[in-house]
Amino acid sequence: MYAVIMAGGRGTRFWPESRERMPKHLLDIAGERTLIQETVGRIETLVPAENILIVTGLSHAEELIRQLPQIPPANVLIEPVGRNTAPCVGLAALHIKRKHPEEVMAVLPADHVITDAKEFCEVLPIAAEMARQGNYLVTIGIPPTRPEVGYGYIERGALRISVRGRDIYEVASIREKPPLETAEMFLERGGFYWNSGMFVWRVDTVLKAIETFLPDLHVSLIRMEKAIGSDREKEVIDREYTHIQPMSIDYGVMEKAENVLLIRGDFGWSDVGSWDALWEISGRDEDGNVASTCGHFVGVDAKNSLVHSTGKMVALIGVKDLIVVETEDSLLICKRGRSQDVKKVVDILEKKNMKEFL
Amino acid sequence: MYAVIMAGGRGTRFWPESRERMPKHLLDIAGERTLIQETVGRIETLVPAENILIVTGLSHAEELIRQLPQIPPANVLIEPVGRNTAPCVGLAALHIKRKHPEEVMAVLPADHVITDAKEFCEVLPIAAEMARQGNYLVTIGIPPTRPEVGYGYIERGALRISVRGRDIYEVASIREKPPLETAEMFLERGGFYWNSGMFVWRVDTVLKAIETFLPDLHVSLIRMEKAIGSDREKEVIDREYTHIQPMSIDYGVMEKAENVLLIRGDFGWSDVGSWDALWEISGRDEDGNVASTCGHFVGVDAKNSLVHSTGKMVALIGVKDLIVVETEDSLLICKRGRSQDVKKVVDILEKKNMKEFL
Repeated sequence: MYAVIMAGGRGTRFWPESRERMPKHLLDIAGERTLIQETVGRIETLVPAENILIVTGLSHAEELIRQLPQIPPANVLIEPVGRNTAPCVGLAALHIKRKHPEEVMAVLPADHVITDAKEFCEVLPIAAEMARQGNYLVTIGIPPTRPEVGYGYIERGALRISVRGRDIYEVASIREKPPLETAEMFLERGGFYWNSGMFVWRVDTVLKAIETFLPDLHVSLIRMEKAIGSDREKEVIDREYTHIQPMSIDYGVMEKAENVLLIRGDFGWSDVGSWDALWEISGRDEDGNVASTCGHFVGVDAKNSLVHSTGKMVALIGVKDLIVVETEDSLLICKRGRSQDVKKVVDILEKKNMKEFL
Repeated sequence: MYAVIMAGGRGTRFWPESRERMPKHLLDIAGERTLIQETVGRIETLVPAENILIVTGLSHAEELIRQLPQIPPANVLIEPVGRNTAPCVGLAALHIKRKHPEEVMAVLPADHVITDAKEFCEVLPIAAEMARQGNYLVTIGIPPTRPEVGYGYIERGALRISVRGRDIYEVASIREKPPLETAEMFLERGGFYWNSGMFVWRVDTVLKAIETFLPDLHVSLIRMEKAIGSDREKEVIDREYTHIQPMSIDYGVMEKAENVLLIRGDFGWSDVGSWDALWEISGRDEDGNVASTCGHFVGVDAKNSLVHSTGKMVALIGVKDLIVVETEDSLLICKRGRSQDVKKVVDILEKKNMKEFL
């Protein structure tokens, strides 16, 4: 089996910790290791390092290679520009195809958190077994715990099979991020799962699906395939990427394909999409505070807050539901529940051309 | 005229900006100059620098002299230990007495804010004229603008005289910090003024009052007076201060004396006793924010907050009524109205013996 780790994100939602040169997956916001180190560490128990490919952008490759000394640098594939997940999956599939055209590849986002790595390592091989049989696009669905409007949903169809206690379903429908009422209905009715963005399929199967549903991308992939390994590789990839349309694998392929299977991923998953989400998944003290600071923390009547600092003494008095992030050059203080607006601050900084803070 | 500036405060209420070695009056929390630089700057238009005495503690003298190059270092009087204001006033009076035993001295706290310096410089000479006549202890009363429970009050008696449009009253009573109901009654009834801690009197008059109402202190002062200028000066002052009882000039003398006069000080006074008070007296932007930061400030739906930082980009999102203070090693985030609890943080740091943050 191969693993393809998608590490293309900018992660502006974790400003001021995340920056243009230091996106979310390269940060240690959720533990001692960075998110990509955690992601690689989890999959390494199932896939040898030489079979782990990482797709990223040029500006992050150096730091990524530094963080992952066990990964051969040749396995770090550079996209000249981000075009969402479909081209990323296609490019990785081309590389694997050269050696093992029928091998299974697991596609994993670099910047998600999984608290139960053991269960993850039980589920993934089952997904791979199904994918190996041939014509299936296997997606991992997360049992929802709240009516989240920030995720896409997958509606399960008929039960296909149960392997070592894990049920595998056909897929009835794939839904884009729903409004709150719909999300509440999904949760109430049951049978809906969060789309985790984790997929398992054979290289030939996914390339065939791209050919069917994204023919333009497939043409570009064929041009790139011919150039890979030659002197013209970079030139051709650069040229093709300039006119490839941005497209997610979810919308471009999964929503249209018939041969999709769903396996439950009940392993404490979060995409940690915001500082709010980080507070949600973090261990809290008796006052509900998360103090992931290298320094000291003193709370006087301070509740349900997240403090993330570089090493200062941080004192909170009489406050609740705050997100406090202090970095070398910036300080963010945000009401909990409002961390989607971190994007607005980044927009303001961009508009003011304050590049040093981006 | 002489001026005596009392600069003995610790100012723990301005943690983390104020520290044991850097009390409030040495900080530039309310402008470009430090509070003591402002205080000296105001009085310098009325009193020559060689007639300005400053009373402080040993640990702050060096920084104080650095901040006030115009003041002769010999005018900086060192108290070996703080014993509240009565001994401080007495010690300064002894120094002036040696040259000008009947001269007027204005006693001014080092760390108050006065927004209308012009009016201050009109009022103080009138107070000095009254004091010069002989037997009066003149106090400056501030017309109250709210039922403040953190200040003492002075109740005016009969109108004695009006000088250049400023009324001077006898004093009916002096009241300690009142409960809220009483403060509200004071405000409603009128005729009550905040005790600013600013006094004007002749050297002989105040020493006579100390002899009458604080005879033990007077005995110590006589011992010290004999030693001043001799080799034994430091030794005697150190010894006397070890057994002098702490006593405020307000409680020890003003409340008991009969010959007290009150002059209105309507010049935008604040003792800036807390971060809350600093927000109150500061100019605010249209959202009610005070960003006294050397760095940049971005607010997204942020209201009525004070940001005081060393130079970082500070972004507030969806918060109101916060006090944010960032220094080189510490970060304070406090609900407005709760800044008296900064003292609790300092207590915790003391208890934990975290001296580096004190």
